Amino acid sequence: MLKRIRSALSNSLIRGKKAPIVLGVSGGPDSLCLLDIMNRLDYQVIVAHLNHCLRAEAKDEAKYIARLSETYQSAFVLEEINISAYAERYKLTVEEAARNVRYGFLFNQAQKFGAQAVVVGHNADDQVETVLMHWLRGTGLSGLKGMPTVGLPNPWSDEIPLVRPLLNIWREEILAYCNKRGITPVFDQSNLDTRYYRNRLRHELIPMLEEYNPGWRKRILQLVNIIEGDNQVLENATHIAWLECLCDQANEYVILSVDKLVSQPIGLQRRLIRRAISCLKPDLRDIGYSMVERIISLLELPSMDNQQDLGAEIRVFIEEPLLYISNSGVEIPKGDWPQVPPGAVITLSLPGVVNLMGGWQLCASLKTDVEGIKDQVRFNENPYLAWIDIGDQPRDVVVRSRKAGEWFQPLGMQEHSMKLSDFMINEKVPKRARKDWPLVCVDDEVAWIAGHQIAHPFRITDESRVVLHLRLEK
Amino acid sequence: MLKRIRSALSNSLIRGKKAPIVLGVSGGPDSLCLLDIMNRLDYQVIVAHLNHCLRAEAKDEAKYIARLSETYQSAFVLEEINISAYAERYKLTVEEAARNVRYGFLFNQAQKFGAQAVVVGHNADDQVETVLMHWLRGTGLSGLKGMPTVGLPNPWSDEIPLVRPLLNIWREEILAYCNKRGITPVFDQSNLDTRYYRNRLRHELIPMLEEYNPGWRKRILQLVNIIEGDNQVLENATHIAWLECLCDQANEYVILSVDKLVSQPIGLQRRLIRRAISCLKPDLRDIGYSMVERIISLLELPSMDNQQDLGAEIRVFIEEPLLYISNSGVEIPKGDWPQVPPGAVITLSLPGVVNLMGGWQLCASLKTDVEGIKDQVRFNENPYLAWIDIGDQPRDVVVRSRKAGEWFQPLGMQEHSMKLSDFMINEKVPKRARKDWPLVCVDDEVAWIAGHQIAHPFRITDESRVVLHLRLEK
Repeated sequence: MLKRIRSALSNSLIRGKKAPIVLGVSGGPDSLCLLDIMNRLDYQVIVAHLNHCLRAEAKDEAKYIARLSETYQSAFVLEEINISAYAERYKLTVEEAARNVRYGFLFNQAQKFGAQAVVVGHNADDQVETVLMHWLRGTGLSGLKGMPTVGLPNPWSDEIPLVRPLLNIWREEILAYCNKRGITPVFDQSNLDTRYYRNRLRHELIPMLEEYNPGWRKRILQLVNIIEGDNQVLENATHIAWLECLCDQANEYVILSVDKLVSQPIGLQRRLIRRAISCLKPDLRDIGYSMVERIISLLELPSMDNQQDLGAEIRVFIEEPLLYISNSGVEIPKGDWPQVPPGAVITLSLPGVVNLMGGWQLCASLKTDVEGIKDQVRFNENPYLAWIDIGDQPRDVVVRSRKAGEWFQPLGMQEHSMKLSDFMINEKVPKRARKDWPLVCVDDEVAWIAGHQIAHPFRITDESRVVLHLRLEK
Repeated sequence: MLKRIRSALSNSLIRGKKAPIVLGVSGGPDSLCLLDIMNRLDYQVIVAHLNHCLRAEAKDEAKYIARLSETYQSAFVLEEINISAYAERYKLTVEEAARNVRYGFLFNQAQKFGAQAVVVGHNADDQVETVLMHWLRGTGLSGLKGMPTVGLPNPWSDEIPLVRPLLNIWREEILAYCNKRGITPVFDQSNLDTRYYRNRLRHELIPMLEEYNPGWRKRILQLVNIIEGDNQVLENATHIAWLECLCDQANEYVILSVDKLVSQPIGLQRRLIRRAISCLKPDLRDIGYSMVERIISLLELPSMDNQQDLGAEIRVFIEEPLLYISNSGVEIPKGDWPQVPPGAVITLSLPGVVNLMGGWQLCASLKTDVEGIKDQVRFNENPYLAWIDIGDQPRDVVVRSRKAGEWFQPLGMQEHSMKLSDFMINEKVPKRARKDWPLVCVDDEVAWIAGHQIAHPFRITDESRVVLHLRLEK
C-alpha cells in the first residue's frame, strides 16, 4: 500500500518534495494516514483544518490536529466557519455548504502559501460512493468515471491541482495502516448519521449491493478505471469533431455547421451539443438528457427552423446551414450576410455602387451592346451576377428590403408568382437575414433577389435591347 | 406508444410486412402485446412457443397460445423440452439452459421458414434489469450499453437479426395496453420466485433503488442510450487503431506492434487487447479486467519478454517490436527471421553461398586487395555486410547456431567478452530467434553474429592482409 501511495504522490506532485502542499485534514483516518505517510516521505506539508462548527467536540478536535501537526513539525492553519448558518444563508444543504466552504478555504491557503497542490484524502470507497451517487442521479459517462486523481482545472483553480493520492486504497487498508502506526483518528459521529444521503449509501445500500454480488465494490472501481480511459478517447474524438463543426463562437453563442454535425456518429453529436451548452453555461453541472435530445431531434427535422427555448436560459435554432445555440435574449450578430440598412430605399445610379451591411456592395451598370452579352448570360452559373432587361425607357431602379406580403415570379416560372417569403425559405435564405435581404426593384417591382434569382419578366430575351448588369460582391 | 412501436418495427424489419417473422411468444404480456400489435399492422407473424416443462400449467398455456394464434390467423409452432433435465445434463443454471434452448428453437424455426427476423418482447424494464445485472457483476462499457434493438450478428445467426421492438416501452405501458385491448396474459408464477436472481432484482433491488432516487429507471434507460452512442464512437476508433497496430493474425494468434500499441491512449490499448483476445476466444463472454491489465503492465515493462500464461488458455509475450497473444501451446511461425536449420553446422566455401531458413542466404568471398577495402569498412553502416580479418593461414569457416554458454567479444570492447545470450538480448534479437540465429565462426570462434556485429579480434586493422567479406541477404 505504501508503495502504491508513494507512486501516486510522485506522479501527481510534479514539483517534488520541496514545494509546499496544502493537505486538507479533517482528523479522520484518511487525512491522518496521508499526513503520516507524506511526513515519512519528507513532503513539505501544510496542515489545513476547517472547523465546521457543527458538533460540540469540534473545538477539541481542532486542538488535537494542531498538536499532531506540531509533532510532525508541519505548519498548521485553521479556519472556523458556522456551516449551518452559511447553508441557511445561501439556501444549500449542509453537505453542499461544507463542500463549498472547505475547498474555498483549502485553495485560498494554497494560493497564499504558493503551494503546488491541494491534497485530500478521498479513498476507493469514497470513489465508489461518488460513482454510485452519480449513477442513481442519472449521468452520462463523465459521471461514471468518478473523481480524478489529479483534478486540473478544477472548480477552484486553473493552476493548482486537487490531488487525491488514496483513490485506489480501500478504507479497510487505511484503517489497518492507522492501527499499525498507532494513529488515533477523530471519530466523527455524523458519519453514521443516515439522514445524510452519502451515509445512507455507505451504511445501507452498498452493503446490500455487496450482498447481491460479493466483490461489487472492487469491480466498480475497475469500471471507473476502464471508463476513465474510454472517456479520454471520446474527449479526443470530440475535440477533433468540434474543430470540424464549429463555425463561430463567442461568450454568448456557439454556431455549428448542421451538415458537419449530422455527419458525426450520434454519440459525438450528443457530446458536441453538450460541449456547446457548457461553453455557454460553464456552471451548469447537469446538462439534461432531454435538452440534448431536443436539439438532436431538431437536427433530424431541419425544416423546423423556429426558435426553441430549452430552459436553463438556452435558446437554439437552425438557419440552414447553421445551428445556433445561445443564451436567451442574446442578439447574435448577423455576420456576413448582405443586408439593406433597416428601412432604407437606395436609388441605384447607373453606373453606380451601393454599400450594404456586412461588408457587401452592389454594383450596377447599363449595357447596350446586348448581343455580346447574351452568351454570357446563358452560361452564367454565378448567383452573384445578374443581367436584367429594363427596356429602353428610363425607369426607377432602387435597392430595398421586402415589403409585407410581397410576391415574386422567379425565372422559369411562366405563369405564376409565389410569395417572396416562401421563395426565400425554399432558397434557404437564413431566417434572420430575410427581413433585410437586398432586392433590386425596377419601378417598385422585384427584379433580382440579390445573390439568388431574377424575376421572369426581367429575363434577357432575343428582343432585349438595354440590359442592367448587377454584381453583388464582398 | 403504438406509434413508437410501429416506428421501431419499420426501422428494424427492413424486408417489410410480407417477409415472415418468427415471434417468440411466452404468453406473458410483452409477447401478447407484440402479437396483437404486429397483427394490427399486418405483419406476417409465425408464433413460436417453447414449453419449458417446468410448471404443471405449461401444457394448458401452450394450448391457449395455439388458440390465440388461430384467432389472429397466425401460424403456430410448438416445441417441448424438459429444461430441468437439459440444465442438469450440461451443468447450467435453469435460466441459462432456458435461454440456450429458447433461442436455439426460435432461430431454427426462422431458418426453416426463411424468416427475416426473430422478434422477442424484451421491454424497457428488462433492459434496466439487464444493465443492472451487468453492472453488479462487473463489466466495461459494452455491458452497460444493454441489449440492442437490432442484434446482428448475434450468437445464433450472422444473417437473421434478433429484434426487440419494445426496448423503450415500460412494463406498465404494456400492461395498460393488454388491459385496454382485452388481452389476458398467461400468469407465470415463477416470475415471482425470488430464488431466481433476475426476479430478486425486479422485486427487491430495483424498487429500493427507485426509493433512493425516484425516476432512477428512466435515467438508466437514458444512460443506456447515451452509452450505446459513445460505444459506437469507441468501436470506430478501435477499428482504426486495430488496422494500425495489427501485424499478423491467424486463427490461433494475433501479433500487434508494441510501439504502435503503446502510442494509443490507454482506453484504446485496453480495447485493442480485448479485441485480440476475443479473436482467439470468440466464446469467452467475460474478458477479465485483470487479464487485460496484465498485458498493459507487460507493455509498460518491455524488458520482461518471458511468456505469461493469462488463464483461459491464453498466452502472451513480447518480442520487441512485437506483442504476441495466442492460444496456449500454439507454435507461432517464426516468419521472416534468418535461421540456421536446427543443429546444422554448414561449412562456408570461399567464395560460396549458404541458404538459411526464412528465405535468407549468406554469401562469402575472400579479398586480398585489402587496401581498397579499408575505407569501405570504415564507413559501412549496413549491418548486413561484414568484413573480417582471417589471416593468411587456411582456417575452418562455418555457419552454425550458438552453443550453450558461449561468449562473444563485440567490436570495440577491447579487453572483455560477454555472454553471447546477453549480447543478443541487448541487440533485441527476438527471443524465439536467438537459438538458431546464424553465427559465422572461424576455427569455432564466433566472428560475426550475422546482421548484427563482428567480434573485436576479427576486426580489420592496418596490418590485415586477407579479408573475408560476408553478406546476409534475403
